[in-house]
Amino acid sequence: MKQSIGAKPLAFPTPTWVVGTYDMNGIPNAMTVAWGGICCSNPPCISVSLRKATYSYAGIIENKAFTVSIPSEKYVKEIDYLGIASGRDENKFEGACLTPVRSEVVPAPYVGEFPVVLECKLLHTLEIGLHTLFVGEIIDIKAEESVLDENKNPDIEKIRPIIYDTGNRSYYSIGCNIGKAFSIGREC
Amino acid sequence: MKQSIGAKPLAFPTPTWVVGTYDMNGIPNAMTVAWGGICCSNPPCISVSLRKATYSYAGIIENKAFTVSIPSEKYVKEIDYLGIASGRDENKFEGACLTPVRSEVVPAPYVGEFPVVLECKLLHTLEIGLHTLFVGEIIDIKAEESVLDENKNPDIEKIRPIIYDTGNRSYYSIGCNIGKAFSIGREC
Repeated sequence: MKQSIGAKPLAFPTPTWVVGTYDMNGIPNAMTVAWGGICCSNPPCISVSLRKATYSYAGIIENKAFTVSIPSEKYVKEIDYLGIASGRDENKFEGACLTPVRSEVVPAPYVGEFPVVLECKLLHTLEIGLHTLFVGEIIDIKAEESVLDENKNPDIEKIRPIIYDTGNRSYYSIGCNIGKAFSIGREC
Repeated sequence: MKQSIGAKPLAFPTPTWVVGTYDMNGIPNAMTVAWGGICCSNPPCISVSLRKATYSYAGIIENKAFTVSIPSEKYVKEIDYLGIASGRDENKFEGACLTPVRSEVVPAPYVGEFPVVLECKLLHTLEIGLHTLFVGEIIDIKAEESVLDENKNPDIEKIRPIIYDTGNRSYYSIGCNIGKAFSIGREC
């Protein structure tokens, strides 16, 4: 039996990603987001949504670029901090003891410690309401060799990404492989 | 040590959601997507990206509405089937033995068996490339009573949503709670 719970920004799962930008003085900034997703296969694009009030918003507008750094679960405290503090008040990379690395392909920094990083050029800006959706074209992906499988594909079980739970505002790890896509559905 | 793996539509985690639409004859259709995410808190909005060639694309354009049904992991075969077959060739609800339920608030059907359903009115359409990004305003959410906690919040551990692994094209379950958001980062 289903019941109405009203109009809310809830969905399961949502990601936990860190958006990297430079501010107008070239200071690296980083902000955790859960509002985002892959949004195009060709050109490969990812979207992230930020409030206009955030310091990272200005950084994206300024440089027309951003990175998306994908954390491992062992960085759960760091990413929570990056979602609480503001780059307006402090250097968040320093506060989190994380290393800003300048992307070679876009004017934005990424988190050196995180296993997978998407370097993005701003392609579209869509004002929706409280949040603005930024579409970034993925110019390159950098991955730690330790999370790549034999085919040079990132291995989710080695990455151990973090899931954000919109229902109870918590973080979750990934669980088990439960089936091969474009395959197990053929048994239906 | 990071290495370049090129520009690809990869990120971790990505969701596994089923987009529900009516076709021009009022036949319910359903399609599994992994390209999507919450994109605004107020008004609450979710985005999904579809190729123009899909039958669901036409359904969204026709009705200016869609639903997002969130599956439990026990429906992994069904959602894989809904990502393989096309509503152009067959009635996919029938093929998957799932029940189309007409939303009372938008002209779109949802999956009766799935625990959480978002009913969305089309707000924006953004052509990106191979995929078109649709922003839907969440008009209401319906949830099974069995997945709600004492505060009427959906409980992710009862929902057991499915994660799509873009690296190896597999499905994953969720794992453990690894921390409270807007809280554990204060220890940094």
